Amino acid sequence: MGGLVLTTFDWVPEPPRGFVRDLRVRWALEEAGLAYRVATTPFEGREAVHFAQQPFGQVPWLTDGDITVFESGAILLYLGEKSAALMPTDPRGRAEAVEWVFAALNSVEMASLPWSMFRFMGFPGNAPEARFVDGFLKARLERIETVLGSREWLAGGSFSVADLLMADVLRPVDRFEGLATYPACRAYLARITGRPAFKKAHADQLADFAAADEARGSGG
Amino acid sequence: MGGLVLTTFDWVPEPPRGFVRDLRVRWALEEAGLAYRVATTPFEGREAVHFAQQPFGQVPWLTDGDITVFESGAILLYLGEKSAALMPTDPRGRAEAVEWVFAALNSVEMASLPWSMFRFMGFPGNAPEARFVDGFLKARLERIETVLGSREWLAGGSFSVADLLMADVLRPVDRFEGLATYPACRAYLARITGRPAFKKAHADQLADFAAADEARGSGG
Repeated sequence: MGGLVLTTFDWVPEPPRGFVRDLRVRWALEEAGLAYRVATTPFEGREAVHFAQQPFGQVPWLTDGDITVFESGAILLYLGEKSAALMPTDPRGRAEAVEWVFAALNSVEMASLPWSMFRFMGFPGNAPEARFVDGFLKARLERIETVLGSREWLAGGSFSVADLLMADVLRPVDRFEGLATYPACRAYLARITGRPAFKKAHADQLADFAAADEARGSGG
Repeated sequence: MGGLVLTTFDWVPEPPRGFVRDLRVRWALEEAGLAYRVATTPFEGREAVHFAQQPFGQVPWLTDGDITVFESGAILLYLGEKSAALMPTDPRGRAEAVEWVFAALNSVEMASLPWSMFRFMGFPGNAPEARFVDGFLKARLERIETVLGSREWLAGGSFSVADLLMADVLRPVDRFEGLATYPACRAYLARITGRPAFKKAHADQLADFAAADEARGSGG
């Protein structure tokens, strides 16, 4: 029962692999050197027991004794309070980390998620809705480009969950070539995802889903 | 210099009035009975001094002595740590409040913001992008409807910043008639926005922008 347990899907199709949001939590756990184990919930046929832990039927959630936390942003702040490797401990640095966690999710991912979903779905892209979302993302990337061009870390003068989250939010944009004209964003993304903890978390997620293929006999 | 200072735009056009995000912060400050004053930054011609406080050129931000916090979600968590009227103090209730703050922003507003912007812009709505966003919001509202149908408060058994934020996220959906088939969401929204602190915050925002009209000689 004890210890940190991260729950994610038991299997997902190929396209989202490497991008399922348990990655953010694995990454933070690896950065902090916190012991944890990974549990799974069925991807197909989500049941009441899943919705009881995660009301939207998504993953991940984190269990720590009798506390369960869902939403990747909330989990990262929860873990941030366990380790100075994830969040500054002084009030000012802490406030910076928290505001940049929200900025990554609510000012950047708010624009990048519909943008990358439209690309993922292969929509033609000439509708006014598509152009609106293009402009929304562009406005946000231009601002982040300025910020990342002037500093190494988003909060508190060192790596934090804010950088982890901003990098993970930029990854799907980069996947669909949305960072081509934002060199500071690309350099930041390469630097942050070059960290050993990211590489291990990413490899672990891919390995777990590959093992699930084997177990299903689908061979990948 | 001392005390809490909330900065918002000095003026905005008519349509967003009552929805500018300083409302969330005013509301929380009123709920907690914390003393504050409102400062302004130009809406037209945003300058370096604004981007230095809020890198996206948005509002609001909150200043508390030598700490400045932007992003409405981060500000609400910051204020939550100052008052039990905004956030439970026990670890479990606190974790619930934080996860629901993120859920309001990242699971609901992530879908509702593009949806309401598309309506605000008057797009025809027949593009695959529009249908995708309709489905995205519908999926999230169906889940929230279930949650709100079974409990009075999102976190910790009492009102918290999670309810404040979820209600404020649902307001633009309701404005464009998106809650018609979600009676639990509508009842929750009416109940939460019926609180005196919301009414005061809302009236104060409208009054401030009306006063700005007067000062500009535009008469509203």
